[in-house]
Amino acid sequence: MPRLIDPEARRREIAEATWRLVHREGLDAVSVRNVAREAGLSTGSLRHVFGSQAELVGFAMSALGERLAQRVAALAPAATPLDAVADVLEQLLPLDAERRREAEVWLAFVARARVDPELQPHLELTDGALRAVVHESLAPLDPPDAELAAEELYALVDGLTLHAVLLPGRPSRETMRKIVRGHLERLAARR
Amino acid sequence: MPRLIDPEARRREIAEATWRLVHREGLDAVSVRNVAREAGLSTGSLRHVFGSQAELVGFAMSALGERLAQRVAALAPAATPLDAVADVLEQLLPLDAERRREAEVWLAFVARARVDPELQPHLELTDGALRAVVHESLAPLDPPDAELAAEELYALVDGLTLHAVLLPGRPSRETMRKIVRGHLERLAARR
Repeated sequence: MPRLIDPEARRREIAEATWRLVHREGLDAVSVRNVAREAGLSTGSLRHVFGSQAELVGFAMSALGERLAQRVAALAPAATPLDAVADVLEQLLPLDAERRREAEVWLAFVARARVDPELQPHLELTDGALRAVVHESLAPLDPPDAELAAEELYALVDGLTLHAVLLPGRPSRETMRKIVRGHLERLAARR
Repeated sequence: MPRLIDPEARRREIAEATWRLVHREGLDAVSVRNVAREAGLSTGSLRHVFGSQAELVGFAMSALGERLAQRVAALAPAATPLDAVADVLEQLLPLDAERRREAEVWLAFVARARVDPELQPHLELTDGALRAVVHESLAPLDPPDAELAAEELYALVDGLTLHAVLLPGRPSRETMRKIVRGHLERLAARR
């Protein structure tokens, strides 16, 4: 009797197996065969859904964005507008083991996507999703020149993430939080 | 009769051949053999100097930092303290073809260095050199809490660089300049 499969749960398993592989062995290790083994699935069943390595990597990249969106949607109401913005931005920073692993996988993806034309559309999707999260996060502060403010904040958050992933502890979690809070306080004061 | 060789010019040629290879084909293409071919040297003569791929890549990474330091040292005196800081920071941003290529090579390096223990010491050296350039650049503005201000600016510049390398034009050169200038103006106003 065939096992009943929740397609959403299956997709999540595949994404998570891909992230684990990228994190442990790098992007070169991602293949339909390796991901199937990591997820405990047959290669055939996975190949049925993903025709190529690029499709699989692209899917795992979009799934990172979805997970971020879910965390943002699940945030408790914040005490102040500034807290509300900071809470969203902290979901993007490598402040715990889960977000740190996400950031490491993200760095591997983007570095490859720059030189792999097949991954370029996935890079644009991910970039668009992250950009939108940062832009929308700023709404409670309603800063002047919101577009430029969002572009600066997006660069700041990704720069901090990049540095913390490359050399753990530089900047520390405390420093990342302090920098983002200070930046937002000055942004709020500009109105 | 053996050709007389300027060791500094030879080192520069090797670094530039390595950058061209990384830029054109990615870091996987870097080997003592391929770099020798790209630089028009014999594999034996190159192997005499660089025992491994990691040594070669580490050398090319340090050479990027040296080139940046030379550009900064060669800057003309600036009209205002703020201009002086902006002039230095603009040497780090991908604002022309040369700095753009450097940034692309830098991204390939750092993404690999995160997962390659042999490259990790080179990553720390490069990070230390860039961090020092940003920190020292701020001296003319003498901001309060200089350490934290430098950490924020360093993240901002690298975030902008990362985004511009990944998706050319987002942010545009004009936007990058505007963001850095605005950031420095507000930093100067904090004193």
